[in-house]
Amino acid sequence: MDYVYGPGRNHLFVPGPVNIPEQVIRAMNRNNEDYRSPAVPALTKTLLEDVKKIFKTTSGTPFLIPTTGTGAWESALTNTLSPGDRIVSFLIGQFSLLWIDQQQRLNFFNGKKVNGDRHPALFLVDGVSSICALDFRMDEWGIDVALTGSQKALSLPTGIGIVCASAKALKASKTAKSVRVFFDWNDYLKFYKLGTYWPYTPSIQLLYGLRAALDLIFEEGLDDVIARHARLGQATRLAVQAWGLKNCTQKEEWYSDTVTAVVVPPNIDSSEIVRRAWKRYNLSLGLGLNKVAGKVFRIGHLGHLNELQLLGCLAGVEMVLKDVGYPVKLGSGVAAASAYLQNSTPFIPSRI
Amino acid sequence: MDYVYGPGRNHLFVPGPVNIPEQVIRAMNRNNEDYRSPAVPALTKTLLEDVKKIFKTTSGTPFLIPTTGTGAWESALTNTLSPGDRIVSFLIGQFSLLWIDQQQRLNFFNGKKVNGDRHPALFLVDGVSSICALDFRMDEWGIDVALTGSQKALSLPTGIGIVCASAKALKASKTAKSVRVFFDWNDYLKFYKLGTYWPYTPSIQLLYGLRAALDLIFEEGLDDVIARHARLGQATRLAVQAWGLKNCTQKEEWYSDTVTAVVVPPNIDSSEIVRRAWKRYNLSLGLGLNKVAGKVFRIGHLGHLNELQLLGCLAGVEMVLKDVGYPVKLGSGVAAASAYLQNSTPFIPSRI
Amino acid sequence: MDYVYGPGRNHLFVPGPVNIPEQVIRAMNRNNEDYRSPAVPALTKTLLEDVKKIFKTTSGTPFLIPTTGTGAWESALTNTLSPGDRIVSFLIGQFSLLWIDQQQRLNFFNGKKVNGDRHPALFLVDGVSSICALDFRMDEWGIDVALTGSQKALSLPTGIGIVCASAKALKASKTAKSVRVFFDWNDYLKFYKLGTYWPYTPSIQLLYGLRAALDLIFEEGLDDVIARHARLGQATRLAVQAWGLKNCTQKEEWYSDTVTAVVVPPNIDSSEIVRRAWKRYNLSLGLGLNKVAGKVFRIGHLGHLNELQLLGCLAGVEMVLKDVGYPVKLGSGVAAASAYLQNSTPFIPSRI
Amino acid sequence: MDYVYGPGRNHLFVPGPVNIPEQVIRAMNRNNEDYRSPAVPALTKTLLEDVKKIFKTTSGTPFLIPTTGTGAWESALTNTLSPGDRIVSFLIGQFSLLWIDQQQRLNFFNGKKVNGDRHPALFLVDGVSSICALDFRMDEWGIDVALTGSQKALSLPTGIGIVCASAKALKASKTAKSVRVFFDWNDYLKFYKLGTYWPYTPSIQLLYGLRAALDLIFEEGLDDVIARHARLGQATRLAVQAWGLKNCTQKEEWYSDTVTAVVVPPNIDSSEIVRRAWKRYNLSLGLGLNKVAGKVFRIGHLGHLNELQLLGCLAGVEMVLKDVGYPVKLGSGVAAASAYLQNSTPFIPSRI
Repeated sequence: MDYVYGPGRNHLFVPGPVNIPEQVIRAMNRNNEDYRSPAVPALTKTLLEDVKKIFKTTSGTPFLIPTTGTGAWESALTNTLSPGDRIVSFLIGQFSLLWIDQQQRLNFFNGKKVNGDRHPALFLVDGVSSICALDFRMDEWGIDVALTGSQKALSLPTGIGIVCASAKALKASKTAKSVRVFFDWNDYLKFYKLGTYWPYTPSIQLLYGLRAALDLIFEEGLDDVIARHARLGQATRLAVQAWGLKNCTQKEEWYSDTVTAVVVPPNIDSSEIVRRAWKRYNLSLGLGLNKVAGKVFRIGHLGHLNELQLLGCLAGVEMVLKDVGYPVKLGSGVAAASAYLQNSTPFIPSRI
Repeated sequence: MDYVYGPGRNHLFVPGPVNIPEQVIRAMNRNNEDYRSPAVPALTKTLLEDVKKIFKTTSGTPFLIPTTGTGAWESALTNTLSPGDRIVSFLIGQFSLLWIDQQQRLNFFNGKKVNGDRHPALFLVDGVSSICALDFRMDEWGIDVALTGSQKALSLPTGIGIVCASAKALKASKTAKSVRVFFDWNDYLKFYKLGTYWPYTPSIQLLYGLRAALDLIFEEGLDDVIARHARLGQATRLAVQAWGLKNCTQKEEWYSDTVTAVVVPPNIDSSEIVRRAWKRYNLSLGLGLNKVAGKVFRIGHLGHLNELQLLGCLAGVEMVLKDVGYPVKLGSGVAAASAYLQNSTPFIPSRI
Repeated sequence: MDYVYGPGRNHLFVPGPVNIPEQVIRAMNRNNEDYRSPAVPALTKTLLEDVKKIFKTTSGTPFLIPTTGTGAWESALTNTLSPGDRIVSFLIGQFSLLWIDQQQRLNFFNGKKVNGDRHPALFLVDGVSSICALDFRMDEWGIDVALTGSQKALSLPTGIGIVCASAKALKASKTAKSVRVFFDWNDYLKFYKLGTYWPYTPSIQLLYGLRAALDLIFEEGLDDVIARHARLGQATRLAVQAWGLKNCTQKEEWYSDTVTAVVVPPNIDSSEIVRRAWKRYNLSLGLGLNKVAGKVFRIGHLGHLNELQLLGCLAGVEMVLKDVGYPVKLGSGVAAASAYLQNSTPFIPSRI
Repeated sequence: MDYVYGPGRNHLFVPGPVNIPEQVIRAMNRNNEDYRSPAVPALTKTLLEDVKKIFKTTSGTPFLIPTTGTGAWESALTNTLSPGDRIVSFLIGQFSLLWIDQQQRLNFFNGKKVNGDRHPALFLVDGVSSICALDFRMDEWGIDVALTGSQKALSLPTGIGIVCASAKALKASKTAKSVRVFFDWNDYLKFYKLGTYWPYTPSIQLLYGLRAALDLIFEEGLDDVIARHARLGQATRLAVQAWGLKNCTQKEEWYSDTVTAVVVPPNIDSSEIVRRAWKRYNLSLGLGLNKVAGKVFRIGHLGHLNELQLLGCLAGVEMVLKDVGYPVKLGSGVAAASAYLQNSTPFIPSRI
């Protein structure tokens, strides 16, 4: 069942799904359980309480939906809106494009930005690639629905769409006329009241995995997790600069600490870089999608990851760049990144 | 993270989620992978081909949707029907009740049975509790959509809704007007054509788990799997009879080889049986749901299970019955079941 | 890699190696680690402290030797004795026979019992099949060396021979002239003093597994673990009696709560029972060894095991007995055992 | 149970125990089994046959002893020699020192090298750090006993001492008078004849793990495994050179492709490098032992490892060197190593 064995560890640097900590893999290594016994609700209760912390909300209501990020999007939209409602969306990349496409197919209209701070619109945020990795403050920023997926910065397998709704969003869900059953928050809320929590069968393994993932995040400290992502993001960008390549993101304020899209010179096909990284160095990089297919490759640097893993990846990218004919100076990106990291990496608190 | 530790193994006899084979737990014990690398499509291709065998279809098109049985239902309905369409449903228990409820909430109407063999209606079958356990022949029986969930007879964790569509159902999906995105078959079909298979991120672990689960089913032989379920179902019913209790299923032709609902005498609360089984004997039984709450308990006997596991369960049920005051003769159910099993259990082929 | 797949769970009732709790399997599911980092000594320190509790000693010194029970024996002997020393041994079964054989091959002499309470002899106890399952009190009983193996009542994989030495035994090890290096306690003691604990590389996985196993034993309570073994042992003996068969152990005071050897009628080959149990019912029983080969089969009932697991086994034994022509009344043993268990099994404390 | 959690993966570069492939971890993730059932001997038979390939012997007899490398040494000596026999040993590092110490404690004498090609002496080789990593040819080189440990290049947990004996060595074992029981080959040979293979209980998990480990080695190809070790060794040495540091191994012909001991300048304590690597970068390096304690640190580069893992380690070493005040040019070692690796690393055959 391992079609493509290569010696040593796969270096997983796609922007999701990401590396799972051994502790989480262990926690999920188990038989099924009766989800109607007292054990699973007791576990679920702790998860619903603790998952709010990664959204930085105390007043939000979380839903752990057995789905992907795409499903989490659909849950956010169909629970708060009625067909024909207007949405103002920001088009800032492939996944916003896909979300806008979903909005249209679900019969919402995309309108223009409305002036005025006091507009009663709901504020929905796709945090799939940011929550648990970047500074995110649902309550403070007045967000009504925020969502993420388990396979991103939480470093779990795919399978839980985590959606968090403000009181205003919950209220909207009582009157929203979009047709929905599987994604309906009200079914969850009914079972929350009963204390059994689940309108249908959850994945026992993912619940224990989520418990372990949250425990690790809290042990490291959410702010330290975010600082680590900032550090790895900056190190990556310094390497890209040292290689003489451009970040696909044009403004510094838009830089992402979870993924870096690197623009390759016109004579190089970025897909060849991704293919070769995997075929020769057991390194998994992300393809450029849609308009930037062939023009960029992506380095995902989110989730359960540390400095030396990233430096191994950067060393690999350098070799692939050389492989495909780009005149990179081997070691240059690693040197730039490690100069920064050697200054900024803290000691591991549990080991001091 | 184990709130309710009890010595020895949990005896899991709810009708889902069911016991996972060690081989499948092992196959899922892994890090994430890039689902856009050549490995995952290669694996997926084998799954899509092989999963058709458990439906006994060669012409159907399967979808492995990251969802639960409830989501698989929704996928079956929204891809084939338009709002206002009429459905004739059979109300034969709690889950048919829930499906009918879903149908109504999705704006389909429930009508009466229509006479005539040649009606052009689509034939949709909820096989969540039967596929891979009971004789099921999608092609031969002219079924248009059949579906199951990974946590049932396939003996996986929850997380894949497996839906199989006939050519007629696929054709219907081209014109069905139900609003859908996450569950839209057409998104899958687009990626099937591309050979990348996934419109959004699948669970890497469940894909490898499904591979292992199918391998085990084919190694045992699907017909032998079905025969095993028939044997365990019959053994359970013989035990119930020996205890002097009634099967909730009133006609023999309706007996299920995957679950037996046992009616308790009026002076006994069946919930107390379920609670006590878990609290004293580490035995997980199913509650009676809805109208039969308190009146029946359920013994699930599906999935990765053998004779002695069932006999251990039956011995446990006897003790619990005695615990709650029912005058059962200890050993009577086990005797009846094992008399049957000692006659009918085949040798394990790989060990002869 | 699964040569002999059979559906459902293997029913493991040999007297070792025994069933491993899922919690322990999980704890061992990990990569290697540097055993010279601070983490492994910190873990080891807790193990050495806590393992003393299963011997009921506060003054003993434990050794966690990467070996089997046979190696633990050799460690006990060679560290305390010099060639030519005399040992008084009790011959009470196959493993005492093997230990006596080892004693002779190691150049110790087997002598007769010496009168007098005050003899300065060391008191060595092979507790491989009893420690953690039966009442055992090293300090109170004045035992000088006690030992067990990880794959027995501790319910781990094979691989740690656990030896505990009294102060008197340690003193003897300073002058014992038996040639030894791998098994030499003094090498361990040297590293104990250094705080690094290991004279050579331990199994990282077994150390974490032992931690989890001890945690489970302490959570259940060692006295409750022992009571559970007494309960399962008695239930097994009642079943044997109900079948009309004899316990190979002739005096009640010698009955073992960890294994029951069942004598079969002269016309039946007990090996055929063991073979058939495995081939037809996925039940693993123990063969009769040496003089009782073909005459007895053994039911191991030690380690991580509960009432319904045992009843499943007993139901299986009944069917096999019938298979081989013994006129057993099906259900009789299960009835006798469950009558006793239904009276004596406590509620699981964590679930009340 | 994780005392010292740090984010991301531990970078394990001690010269053993080494990184375990996920495939092997999976294979070991299992319950115990009856080792007297037909399954375990069938598995063992394949292991004994296949393990000979890593020794490059067809005529040797292998023993899979539940012990460590130290135990494997003891097995090699006590089965072939009698007390008072003379051994000529080569003192070439800490582990040869320990083996010589063991030889003396086991009452063999260390003598001088004897001239003459035709001396009847047995030729014993400690291959713990080389077999499966370096070119090793037992038959061709006329070796009588070769041995390794599971936790080295085989990339398993500690727990199997693998010893392979020539016909001449086996013959010697018939008359060798060293006292031994646990390590006695003759006990194994007796059970080999019976076809049950095990004189005492093996670790079920390690047997399945060894099967998986051998399968991976054969899939990669033993010669390619050796070439990979040569490549990683050379890359490491080039990095050390680029850092301006010295290899502790003075002659090029003595360079090891499994470990590189790096001499630090007199003003730096190499232990501080090892401590800091672990505390700050989650990097596990080996300490200098005995005479070179504080003067060298060791980079283990054996077992399941690839180019980018090594480059991550080298980047980490550079940062630690800078941390402790050594004026390293960051990126210099990585540049030297990757210049070499970019030229020499083959494509992964299964992915071409």
